[in-house]
Amino acid sequence: MTRLDVWAPNAKRVEVVAGEGERYPMELAGDGWWWADVASLGPGHDYRFSLDGGDGLPDPRSQWQPAGVHGPSRIVDHSAFSWTDGAWSTFPLADAVLYELHIGTFSPEGTFDGAVGYLDHLVDLGVNAVEVMPVNQFPGSRGWGYDGVDLYAPQHEYGGPDGFKRFVDACHRRCLAVVLDVVYNHLGPDGNHLGVFGPYFTDRYSTPWGMAPNLDGPESDNVRAFIVDNALMWLRDYHVDGLRLDATHAIVDMSALHIIEELVDAVRPLEPSRWVIAESDRNDPRLVWTRENGGYGLDAQWSDDFHHSLHAALTGERQGYYADFGPLADIAAALRNAYVYDGRYSVFRRRHHGRPPGAGVPGTRFLGYLQNHDQIGNRAAGERSGHLMSQPHVEAAAALVLLSPFVPMLFQGEEWGASSPFQYFTDHRDPRLAKAVSEGRKREHAGFGADVPDPQDPTTFERSKLDWGERERAPHSDLLWWHRQLIEVRRSSARSAADLDSTHVAWDEGERWLVVDRGEIAVVANVGEKSVRVPLPAAAMRTVTAASPSTRDAVAVHDDAVDLAPGAAVFGPAAAG
Amino acid sequence: MTRLDVWAPNAKRVEVVAGEGERYPMELAGDGWWWADVASLGPGHDYRFSLDGGDGLPDPRSQWQPAGVHGPSRIVDHSAFSWTDGAWSTFPLADAVLYELHIGTFSPEGTFDGAVGYLDHLVDLGVNAVEVMPVNQFPGSRGWGYDGVDLYAPQHEYGGPDGFKRFVDACHRRCLAVVLDVVYNHLGPDGNHLGVFGPYFTDRYSTPWGMAPNLDGPESDNVRAFIVDNALMWLRDYHVDGLRLDATHAIVDMSALHIIEELVDAVRPLEPSRWVIAESDRNDPRLVWTRENGGYGLDAQWSDDFHHSLHAALTGERQGYYADFGPLADIAAALRNAYVYDGRYSVFRRRHHGRPPGAGVPGTRFLGYLQNHDQIGNRAAGERSGHLMSQPHVEAAAALVLLSPFVPMLFQGEEWGASSPFQYFTDHRDPRLAKAVSEGRKREHAGFGADVPDPQDPTTFERSKLDWGERERAPHSDLLWWHRQLIEVRRSSARSAADLDSTHVAWDEGERWLVVDRGEIAVVANVGEKSVRVPLPAAAMRTVTAASPSTRDAVAVHDDAVDLAPGAAVFGPAAAG
Repeated sequence: MTRLDVWAPNAKRVEVVAGEGERYPMELAGDGWWWADVASLGPGHDYRFSLDGGDGLPDPRSQWQPAGVHGPSRIVDHSAFSWTDGAWSTFPLADAVLYELHIGTFSPEGTFDGAVGYLDHLVDLGVNAVEVMPVNQFPGSRGWGYDGVDLYAPQHEYGGPDGFKRFVDACHRRCLAVVLDVVYNHLGPDGNHLGVFGPYFTDRYSTPWGMAPNLDGPESDNVRAFIVDNALMWLRDYHVDGLRLDATHAIVDMSALHIIEELVDAVRPLEPSRWVIAESDRNDPRLVWTRENGGYGLDAQWSDDFHHSLHAALTGERQGYYADFGPLADIAAALRNAYVYDGRYSVFRRRHHGRPPGAGVPGTRFLGYLQNHDQIGNRAAGERSGHLMSQPHVEAAAALVLLSPFVPMLFQGEEWGASSPFQYFTDHRDPRLAKAVSEGRKREHAGFGADVPDPQDPTTFERSKLDWGERERAPHSDLLWWHRQLIEVRRSSARSAADLDSTHVAWDEGERWLVVDRGEIAVVANVGEKSVRVPLPAAAMRTVTAASPSTRDAVAVHDDAVDLAPGAAVFGPAAAG
Repeated sequence: MTRLDVWAPNAKRVEVVAGEGERYPMELAGDGWWWADVASLGPGHDYRFSLDGGDGLPDPRSQWQPAGVHGPSRIVDHSAFSWTDGAWSTFPLADAVLYELHIGTFSPEGTFDGAVGYLDHLVDLGVNAVEVMPVNQFPGSRGWGYDGVDLYAPQHEYGGPDGFKRFVDACHRRCLAVVLDVVYNHLGPDGNHLGVFGPYFTDRYSTPWGMAPNLDGPESDNVRAFIVDNALMWLRDYHVDGLRLDATHAIVDMSALHIIEELVDAVRPLEPSRWVIAESDRNDPRLVWTRENGGYGLDAQWSDDFHHSLHAALTGERQGYYADFGPLADIAAALRNAYVYDGRYSVFRRRHHGRPPGAGVPGTRFLGYLQNHDQIGNRAAGERSGHLMSQPHVEAAAALVLLSPFVPMLFQGEEWGASSPFQYFTDHRDPRLAKAVSEGRKREHAGFGADVPDPQDPTTFERSKLDWGERERAPHSDLLWWHRQLIEVRRSSARSAADLDSTHVAWDEGERWLVVDRGEIAVVANVGEKSVRVPLPAAAMRTVTAASPSTRDAVAVHDDAVDLAPGAAVFGPAAAG
């Protein structure tokens, strides 16, 4: 016996379709919700819903789609899983060092269980939280996950619901928190049957990727509940510690309580407290202002401006949005203000952009990173930083990121300078869609001609998998060692609740060096192409604790200055603060 | 010699067309702005702009359109006007009693100068601020003004720029502040040439009335400046004391600094300080939270929930949005919370709606009214409250409004229960548009059949003009007396910076009475259809200062109770607070 519920406010008749096509009528419970107790159904059984006599469709809140986005839904008994993480409790986000990973390419197996095999590496590295790219069911077996449609069903090819639980459980046993990337701004183009069930979408607004959710129109309550309940499901049934909300800038909600605030309100009472982190390109600090201060009360948002300023300065690239970045002054602005664009004119956007975060906002309300899946994978060939700059320069950048006032985040393999790219891959089974995606990608990166990897080609996916063997070999092993040192210093010294205001940055635009002094810890980095002498104020740093093996010999510390070869960086506790 | 400037970022060539069709080339100054010094042009001369050799179009920032929305623009020298209001200085909005008026129907002449002739009546009435429905140029000579297109040009038929200045000057000489209604959420359908000049509009969002302004896309800076500069123009060149922003709920702006905040930022530094008031149906207190508390920092917003709860309770109407209102508890909720819908489910909207204003928000951040142009004019026949309820009930409602914690506002003629309706009237000269408006209005109010006044018919406009003669005749004169008493008490006793929290309301849903106790002042009103005894706590009111002549005999005050006939109301200073 299983009770099934579904919201289908416009249907005249709803049936459960199960077994050999048997149909079980559902009853209207009110508010557009239908329900049925189906005696023949139990955990592990498949079913569909039929509206007004139509074909069976997957459950909008399906917990498991073993035959893909168009297949039947399978019943899951969440109480059946044996958790072993009773001793675990989420810690403050300000103490986190995050590691973004993609289940399909993190391990050779490309599954949750496969990923578990490499968690000890993360513990050795010193990170204490993983951020998992979306795991809800998407079309086909290969994908980034942002075109997912079954928001409640962990991807079957990754291992389905039990697989994800085993993964989270294994993380918690190693004291690794788990942040899950969830996509509430649009649904993927294939397998999206929600519109048949109810007014999930609106044409009052649009998104670049698909129909906009109906968050403020008539009957939007149940659309909002669809989102909030989904968030709570991951936290409750999968023991997830936090959520990363994808592209919140594309969520248009004109109601008085923005869906993000409603989601935060729903999550806040949970014990232990969980994290809600947003991706946003709006440079609007209201996202991370506390509720008391009129904000949305998010724990943090991604800081793309910090990324872009680092990337542009270190690679010299100026294409696309990097046109807005370049000078070291931008890195300094990001470190002290989170937003480089805090009201400045953006050439790329052709308008003024952003506003200052205001006084007293901790740096740990922002995530800082040199790389992430988007910044790598949205390039034509999916190049990592290590493909675009020398290893010493990657090391310098790593020091600036990991000892920044922000909560730092690495992307899988970044710690050893993985040689594998992270390319855009898909597995659309709808031939027209598959063709459109392949050709669209070529058009988007027309400058690369035939070299643009075809997202639909399985080798594009295979090529993006990590090569775990290389991490023990130089120069990868040197970079891995350097990351370990930085993370250790970060975690032992930098409980970083400090306001951004207390980060001091000195730099020389021509000589291409920066000094970042956060009181407890300071970094000196040469991000240029020639050796420099950095005139450190006498005793500005008590000690220089380490340097990467590949640049160690290129550092000389004097009483009142440090000589640094290109890409060399030193760090240590600051003297005066 | 006159310098002309125009923003036309996509044009290859821009010319001034003046005199007998002479064309004067303009030069590109940068950022899409063109300029020219035209020696032959001076104040009072007409000109147009031609883009890429096309026909001459009105200046988007035209100061005067003497030949209507399609005609040439006329040059105005603002320094030429002789202001006589040097002694005037805007007072705090919390002390205001507002009076909404429509220039075309307020006086028989339907002009600014005509309106001046009736200002002394307002002074006698005791109001201290007028709120003027939009005066910027709209198509034809009759209209509410919300379909205006030349945002910078006072309607020529009203008296043009000098006429509006004379009106404001005359108000200030009588110590009346002037609030101007401005429409930034859309432009009217006729005479809108802005899209030819630049990317003023976007198709990413939509409004019910016309294209949405481009406030957050590429090149939106100059669209935002178009709005902010317009606001500043009224305050600077016309000495206006405040702005009422029309339908801000329809303004979609996803940038970090909402256009309303940008506008507030631009207005705040002005000396003396001015008021920025929003119409909004979002029930989002962020509009009126201070900037320090994460709000937009507006002085106030209109409180439709208070209106709807009063109107529904007193008329028994439940059609349209009144379906959400009715019980006296809603009036009480509005008086204590501003929003009746502070997160409650709205049957009309078919979703939950609003959020609580939060502690400490003064009642004077909201405007309270029994009637306004929309609530009257959007009815099929434009009926006022006096057409829908007995005069005693209007009197009871007036006491609840004028002694409420909100900044009260009357609509022209409300003070004497004007017999004239306020109907929807237009004067579209484009035959297709005229037909569409006439037929659309009939369709919208299909239930009224042939009785729906035709907006295009001049008699619809004439019928909506006030009949000033009637105000001296009973029963109009009685109602006028009552309003004078209420306003006098309001202004002498109720400097109402009190939090909403300190308003106490008692009511009996069945007996249909309310007691509103604000400490300094209390009101007892019988809004029902039978006589009631209201059990006032001993000495809850020290004195009962007045009652309307038509209900005076229907009031009996006892030691511990007040007897009230239907529609009777008493008020006076409360004892205990």
